Amino acid sequence: MASSFCPKQALSFTNSAHQSRAIPRDIHVRFPASVSSPSSRCGLKLKATTRLKVLATYATKVMDQSSSKASSQAPTVVEVDLGNRSYPIYIGAGLLDQPDLLQRHIHGKRVLVVTNTTVAPLYLDKTISTLTDGNPNVTVESVILPDGEQFKNMETLMKVFDKAIESRLDRRCTFVALGGGVIGDMCGYAAASYLRGVNFIQIPTTVMAQVDSSVGGKTGINHPLGKNMIGAFYQPQCVLIDTDTLNTLPDRELASGLAEVIKYGLIRDAEFFEWQEQNMPLLLARDPTAFTYAIKRSCENKAEVVSQDEKESGVRATLNLGHTFGHAVETGVGYGQWLHGEAVAAGTVMAVDMSRRLGWIDDSLVQRVQKILEQAKLPTSPPEIMTVEMFKSIMAVDKKVADGKLRLILLNGSLGNCVFTGDYDQKALDETLRAFSKS
Amino acid sequence: MASSFCPKQALSFTNSAHQSRAIPRDIHVRFPASVSSPSSRCGLKLKATTRLKVLATYATKVMDQSSSKASSQAPTVVEVDLGNRSYPIYIGAGLLDQPDLLQRHIHGKRVLVVTNTTVAPLYLDKTISTLTDGNPNVTVESVILPDGEQFKNMETLMKVFDKAIESRLDRRCTFVALGGGVIGDMCGYAAASYLRGVNFIQIPTTVMAQVDSSVGGKTGINHPLGKNMIGAFYQPQCVLIDTDTLNTLPDRELASGLAEVIKYGLIRDAEFFEWQEQNMPLLLARDPTAFTYAIKRSCENKAEVVSQDEKESGVRATLNLGHTFGHAVETGVGYGQWLHGEAVAAGTVMAVDMSRRLGWIDDSLVQRVQKILEQAKLPTSPPEIMTVEMFKSIMAVDKKVADGKLRLILLNGSLGNCVFTGDYDQKALDETLRAFSKS
Repeated sequence: MASSFCPKQALSFTNSAHQSRAIPRDIHVRFPASVSSPSSRCGLKLKATTRLKVLATYATKVMDQSSSKASSQAPTVVEVDLGNRSYPIYIGAGLLDQPDLLQRHIHGKRVLVVTNTTVAPLYLDKTISTLTDGNPNVTVESVILPDGEQFKNMETLMKVFDKAIESRLDRRCTFVALGGGVIGDMCGYAAASYLRGVNFIQIPTTVMAQVDSSVGGKTGINHPLGKNMIGAFYQPQCVLIDTDTLNTLPDRELASGLAEVIKYGLIRDAEFFEWQEQNMPLLLARDPTAFTYAIKRSCENKAEVVSQDEKESGVRATLNLGHTFGHAVETGVGYGQWLHGEAVAAGTVMAVDMSRRLGWIDDSLVQRVQKILEQAKLPTSPPEIMTVEMFKSIMAVDKKVADGKLRLILLNGSLGNCVFTGDYDQKALDETLRAFSKS
Repeated sequence: MASSFCPKQALSFTNSAHQSRAIPRDIHVRFPASVSSPSSRCGLKLKATTRLKVLATYATKVMDQSSSKASSQAPTVVEVDLGNRSYPIYIGAGLLDQPDLLQRHIHGKRVLVVTNTTVAPLYLDKTISTLTDGNPNVTVESVILPDGEQFKNMETLMKVFDKAIESRLDRRCTFVALGGGVIGDMCGYAAASYLRGVNFIQIPTTVMAQVDSSVGGKTGINHPLGKNMIGAFYQPQCVLIDTDTLNTLPDRELASGLAEVIKYGLIRDAEFFEWQEQNMPLLLARDPTAFTYAIKRSCENKAEVVSQDEKESGVRATLNLGHTFGHAVETGVGYGQWLHGEAVAAGTVMAVDMSRRLGWIDDSLVQRVQKILEQAKLPTSPPEIMTVEMFKSIMAVDKKVADGKLRLILLNGSLGNCVFTGDYDQKALDETLRAFSKS
């Protein structure tokens, strides 16, 4: 399988810090008629509170607030409806400059910010200022964890508990996750477990965390034998997504997040997929308006699914398109070597390939998936190290195995339709594994 | 403070195995008129399904089923009402000989029994037989942990995850806790966290676990700096209490559990306290009918409180009478040196002393508490190692501290009444700490 993704080049990014961006101005956002709405002049289905910017603006430095301030007054809000565990997701540029948004969700007087060595130099001071500005009763502690999926384990988690207990934080404290998906998952599980549960707020700073971890309450850590094997379903008080934080995100991390954005289109939102096919260059250029839309629509899709099935007993599993194969890749190559979205992208191609072998989708859809992933600079095949046996062995402990049968998410029918099933011809799975493995 | 409790003698029990019992027959159960009910000839408020035995029967060997079989057909049932997380507690002699009781709560085909080195030789084979008898589709794995509060930590917890993952247990598996409170707490937290939550059944084999851990869903582990600092609220599918398992319980463990039984009387059930004052010798003699009643009434009391306040935001905290001082003792002397109930007993005397200093209760109640704890062979003062500073320092990280203020459960008014409050004269607390500490 050909791929425009170069693992060697990609790996060189693994430990790189967030970088500042310099992107040309005046790129026009193009929206298809199919997602138009009378409430917005540029055609987005956004809430009336959202202020739209048709001409893209960019922050050339992390702390450049001239552009973000201008657009920071009215966040886009997605409400995640989970009964008494419902919460808002605020999306927009410059939201970390709006103290009120965060402060209204702090219940006690003590806050613990959990972040990592990459994000702390960029956004920790700003976050502490936002939490305490005009609010002298609140004191903020912070714990800075090592950065990377390979540290998403019990040992690192204990550092959060150590800090919380040393700081004598009580039940009315709030844990704030400042960082990507790993930080969100670990901080969330720590919040779920500390004193059997304390308040939790997420400030995701990667596309992946913004479009995936911000909805659904899945928290947890990895075990040497499997990803996310230990965790909890735990909902935050709120999620604050400041799109300005994407200006410091490495290209490879950006692409990784786009794998999940693409997934929402494939499993349930054909219009959104078509929008992405037309607007991928804008997303790669970090256009804030395009990103606000992509994040909002991703969160809405996920929120709809999660509201129907909070504990993943049925439809929620469809959000894992490409993840079963992808988790096998992440486990097989070792956590932290491939980013989550990169593994999901390769896994998505495999799931789509298997769907085609089963006769459930047309060749044209296979090609569109391949093309959009290449456009997003994502891998479209697993690394050569993966063997059929490695896939089978690792997938056997997947959480979606029930009574010994591996259930998969597969596309079925036209664009935007999928199934979650263990009822498929095993031969198709074997053929897919062989097609994507050297041995 | 005088005490009939001898730490030296008590410590000699710490690592002793469960012992077989030889108790004289024909001890008569005495029940006060105040708890009588027309539905039972001996005056207990039990469900019609409960078969009563006025003359006590005893199993002289662990596996002697002659007596238990005779009384094993109709368990007493306490329903814990928590909406869609409600579950039954089955109480009675010989329940581990009734496969149907357990099997109806196993949903998948895989079971993991979590137990310890003391309980495994006594009840693991029997439990596996009960789970699989006439049910060949179910396979049972087991993990045997070291015994003792000092092993209630993250390292031991990981052994449960290791076993579950190595055994490739999926989301439809069931974790069964077979043992005392430590096993129940750890297994419950493991069940809450494994794959973000799997089925959980409790088979408590100590009085403490039967009257305390079996209701309320509190699970967790200790941190070197504090007890139960890490955990989850997680409800079981059912709790099965076979009173025959008490026949192998060391005297010191038995007394420890009675501290919690006594607590229920003090905080909310004067009748039950009076019943205990009259029937303590029967409980110490392990009379099964008396114990079935004491366990049932304890569970009912706790279930009523928990139903009102599952997450301990208010009234549930009253169940912690004596626990704030008691936890300080457990932490101060090192986990596993004093049993939980022993520490709670000493802590209860301190809470009662403070209540008297505040003028909230009469001297006569102070004396009744002292007397019943002595009858139950429980300590009535903390160990000499404890200083005022140790108490203060450890209690400062108690989970009931809110915004820096330590809230306590204190008796107030006549027998059976208490308050949970941070609104008290600090002087009374200081005086109590000084009265019970050498320095």
